[in-house]
Amino acid sequence: MAEEIRVEALDAERFIADQVAAIRAAVGEGTAINALSGGVDSAVVTLLGHCALGERLRTVMVENGLMREGELERTAAVFADLGVPVEIIDARDAFFAALRGVRDPEAKREAITQTFYRDVFGRLVRESGARTLLQGTILTDVDETVAGIKRQHNVFAQLGIDPQETFGYAIVEPLLQLRKDGVRKVGAALGLPAEVFARMPFPGPALAARVIGEATPERIATVRRATAIVERLLADSGAFQHLAVLHEDRVTGMRDGRRDFGQQIEVRCWDSVDARVASPTALPWETLRRLADEILAEVPGVVSVTYNLATKPPSTIEAV
Amino acid sequence: MAEEIRVEALDAERFIADQVAAIRAAVGEGTAINALSGGVDSAVVTLLGHCALGERLRTVMVENGLMREGELERTAAVFADLGVPVEIIDARDAFFAALRGVRDPEAKREAITQTFYRDVFGRLVRESGARTLLQGTILTDVDETVAGIKRQHNVFAQLGIDPQETFGYAIVEPLLQLRKDGVRKVGAALGLPAEVFARMPFPGPALAARVIGEATPERIATVRRATAIVERLLADSGAFQHLAVLHEDRVTGMRDGRRDFGQQIEVRCWDSVDARVASPTALPWETLRRLADEILAEVPGVVSVTYNLATKPPSTIEAV
Repeated sequence: MAEEIRVEALDAERFIADQVAAIRAAVGEGTAINALSGGVDSAVVTLLGHCALGERLRTVMVENGLMREGELERTAAVFADLGVPVEIIDARDAFFAALRGVRDPEAKREAITQTFYRDVFGRLVRESGARTLLQGTILTDVDETVAGIKRQHNVFAQLGIDPQETFGYAIVEPLLQLRKDGVRKVGAALGLPAEVFARMPFPGPALAARVIGEATPERIATVRRATAIVERLLADSGAFQHLAVLHEDRVTGMRDGRRDFGQQIEVRCWDSVDARVASPTALPWETLRRLADEILAEVPGVVSVTYNLATKPPSTIEAV
Repeated sequence: MAEEIRVEALDAERFIADQVAAIRAAVGEGTAINALSGGVDSAVVTLLGHCALGERLRTVMVENGLMREGELERTAAVFADLGVPVEIIDARDAFFAALRGVRDPEAKREAITQTFYRDVFGRLVRESGARTLLQGTILTDVDETVAGIKRQHNVFAQLGIDPQETFGYAIVEPLLQLRKDGVRKVGAALGLPAEVFARMPFPGPALAARVIGEATPERIATVRRATAIVERLLADSGAFQHLAVLHEDRVTGMRDGRRDFGQQIEVRCWDSVDARVASPTALPWETLRRLADEILAEVPGVVSVTYNLATKPPSTIEAV
């Protein structure tokens, strides 16, 4: 496995030149595909791939039904400004079909992985003739997967899975030696706008990682609304990452003087440098109250809001 | 239904004299039974009954397996000091048998109600010849039950249930016109020590109301340990009520570098006057951190701790 490049030792210009050369060498005379999620990792890979391959790279955004409010439109606009063509593929039905009835976190991750790599990309590869997928796996993804803490959807070789054999294409991972801080430095050097390169981490399984239990369209809609409120109110918190989680547990509440056995949203807001260790942000009480009030007022069915107090470890950043 | 006596209009001495007379009238020449839970309501009823009936009142503490750490010993010692005899009845097996496999909050309440009133008290009544049960129902219990928000285990007549017919004994409720603040005033006038009359409210179903999902002996032990930490750290918070809830949802955590799909404890700490409306106490961050650190360190299997931010309404004080 490639050695870690720590952010303080990272020469971004040299890293970019090296990776552009490596991508060209890997793809040869062929074409490549990559998926842009809106997060910093896939955005940096898109630009590296664009530098290396120009029109021989096909960049797609997969509408999986699990994205945040306005995500698709916002990301497409940024890349249109950068002159990078992005194609949108609607695969919502395939993802929700694969997630139906699936409650276990690892099983959900596996359902998303299979849908993404086998179904959606399998089809694209067959149609396009591309033989290489570029993707934004970073070192922290590999660490957590190999340690058995959380299977990241984009980690294969380290688990003994050969993508060529399993999915029919090779995977190239230009960011495998970096952690999030290194990726941001490269993103800035590539000319990505700060709204993208400084963006909070967001999980590969997207909002499916933000619901405990089954990820139905209705439950995803609930956590999407809560997420929009959390992201708006905590945008200036300076936190490393903040998020909303929809619990599966129901709790007794009351609406209009009657019992309402309702849902619970947990807010997490983390202070961290590189996600390896993290602690909850000491938000002011005024902010905590506003989070609760807005979520209770605006998200249908929610009667309870909590704030995470646990450190990582023993917690992880995401609940699922 | 008897009219509410608001605390500011409550003449405690006169109330005591009236209720002592009413209990004597209801019990006549017979004997009565009452259950002491350790909470203020049942403690006040015990003293009222003791004043009215002396040795014709049999006071029992039912060890239901659902009490807080040290509860039984602490309460027995207080009443021994007051010269009131208290008998302890071990009914743990009956309660856990009734709760086995029961996950729905209302079904749990019903299982506890039936075990307590039909099995445990049914047997006591048959053995003792008592025909009256004194109990500490207060107005808030009735309100919440009648409104359909939360069935309180001690409310019958208002639901159209005749205890005489259903259980074989009459129920006398001396505190039915009071809310918690009124009960405390009466408790103080009766000479109860402040550690009892100023005690936080605690639910009838005890720690079974503090676990979401099935109340097994193991899950009760988990929430009991968390409750002891919360009560110790928040004893001087000045809050109306504080509590720990064990969630049924599991969340991804890590212990010793490996995945631990663990449990979550929610801490609630309420500011309130009479429990009708309530808001979360703005605890200092040092306290919140200490709550999380101690629970994560001392309660086996717990990888996540949250703090409730919701107001009542739409939340209720307890989660179950």
